[in-house]
Amino acid sequence: MLRKIVPIVLAALIAAPAATAQAPSAAQILAASPKSDWRELNPMNTLYMDLDRGRVIIELAPSFAPRHVDNLRRLVSDRYFDGLAILRSQDNYVVQWGDPNDEEPTARPLGGAASKLAPEFTRRDITGVVWTPIPDRDAYARQVGFADGFPAGRDPDSGETWLLHCYGMVAVARGNPADSGSGSQLYAINGHAPRHLDRNMTVVGRVVAGMDILASLPRGTGNLGFYSLPEQRTPINRVRFAAELPENQRIPMEALRTNTDTFARVTEARRNRKDDFFHVSAGGIDVCNVGLPIREPR
Amino acid sequence: MLRKIVPIVLAALIAAPAATAQAPSAAQILAASPKSDWRELNPMNTLYMDLDRGRVIIELAPSFAPRHVDNLRRLVSDRYFDGLAILRSQDNYVVQWGDPNDEEPTARPLGGAASKLAPEFTRRDITGVVWTPIPDRDAYARQVGFADGFPAGRDPDSGETWLLHCYGMVAVARGNPADSGSGSQLYAINGHAPRHLDRNMTVVGRVVAGMDILASLPRGTGNLGFYSLPEQRTPINRVRFAAELPENQRIPMEALRTNTDTFARVTEARRNRKDDFFHVSAGGIDVCNVGLPIREPR
Repeated sequence: MLRKIVPIVLAALIAAPAATAQAPSAAQILAASPKSDWRELNPMNTLYMDLDRGRVIIELAPSFAPRHVDNLRRLVSDRYFDGLAILRSQDNYVVQWGDPNDEEPTARPLGGAASKLAPEFTRRDITGVVWTPIPDRDAYARQVGFADGFPAGRDPDSGETWLLHCYGMVAVARGNPADSGSGSQLYAINGHAPRHLDRNMTVVGRVVAGMDILASLPRGTGNLGFYSLPEQRTPINRVRFAAELPENQRIPMEALRTNTDTFARVTEARRNRKDDFFHVSAGGIDVCNVGLPIREPR
Repeated sequence: MLRKIVPIVLAALIAAPAATAQAPSAAQILAASPKSDWRELNPMNTLYMDLDRGRVIIELAPSFAPRHVDNLRRLVSDRYFDGLAILRSQDNYVVQWGDPNDEEPTARPLGGAASKLAPEFTRRDITGVVWTPIPDRDAYARQVGFADGFPAGRDPDSGETWLLHCYGMVAVARGNPADSGSGSQLYAINGHAPRHLDRNMTVVGRVVAGMDILASLPRGTGNLGFYSLPEQRTPINRVRFAAELPENQRIPMEALRTNTDTFARVTEARRNRKDDFFHVSAGGIDVCNVGLPIREPR
């Protein structure tokens, strides 16, 4: 009873609490899943951002933002982010990093990367994308689910699909023009999903490890949570693709495939929790609360 | 263009960005609101929790949790929380504080307060409550809106109404039995709303200032985000009701009344943002994103 309230998704991966045979817990379902239910993160699409506080790992979504991911490849291969910093931490909104002077004459050169890119806010054709809808209601999108392992919304009429601004999702900051983002500044969601940004921003991926580091940064006291003084910023030591590092310096990770019975059962176990703690089942789930299990390979 | 993305609700209170006459911004609507649209927080229902990092201010909800609020009055008047600590900071879930030994023989005495209380998970009769529904879809509740200024869900069939686990909401930790909470440990939501806890926990209020302090605490590395070592905990210097302090030590605050045209217009402005930054309007809003404006009296 010292634990006064129950574990969440990732905590559930650590310990499998007792549950009845009739209603296995999410942790029990995951523990019993076959290896084939998991996919290895592609080192070519996995970014490591190293801070003094630790490593932030980001899985990129090239199937939704191919141009922006390509631009990030150029920036990272130019070591663009090394020595830049976390510029902004606005409570219950975003943490943002990159070049604070990216619109000034003193901007860090973008090398072979583009300074503006046609937006990738939505995608019309999802041929080849693994699309796993869920039936739950959503305040913003007509239909929600998971696209290539990322939370996504869909409009059955227009046929558009887009990635969502859930907690931990990463997107490209921009000015007013839709094409004004390049990746010179990126942000991650650190609070309740600001879903009004959906379809207005190019979402490029999600933080799969280290979000606790970004989310616990001191809030900036300047306008919009920007740090008022340069010395308040957290330096970025380096950003690399996993594929750039020797194998023994990589952190192998697996994500649960969404098009599996395991994923459906885990989601249902979270939608209707059945254990001694819960007296009422929710009966539904917010797409941003589904949780996308990540683990080290077994 | 240095501001790469737009302000949120509270930031909007700081500066009123330019908008067209046809579509005033939320900040402009608030700036033009009459004084009568605002209610003063009742000092008898306002808690100050003082930490070295600053003051956390909590508005209590006696109309939804009268027994638990009464118990908190007894605990605070006994100075129960003074010298206790923040015990837990679990990323994207909760920050929790109180007596870590509340179930041990070494528990701090509860004085005149009860050690267990009949739960106040939902309320059936809302006579006298200011109920402001919104039409937006919700993954968890059939109907959502605001009850006495707090985000709430409602089941038209059962007639039950309950407060929601939105970001910054405060509730009573408990063990498995529904009546096992007393207020000896409380928690605040520090991430995407864990709405599966709704109707399973007694929600007692919300943080109206200082949530940035709680949310940026280092995450605990123990199970469920509890701090592994006592010295990692953040001490609570004191908890007082505003009414206990001399007037000149209080922080007067006003909340926007939800049953006003101003609130409806601000919510609509957030539902369908119309400015140069947004290319697509959301068309709906999550009840936990509506925002409940707070200000110092003018």
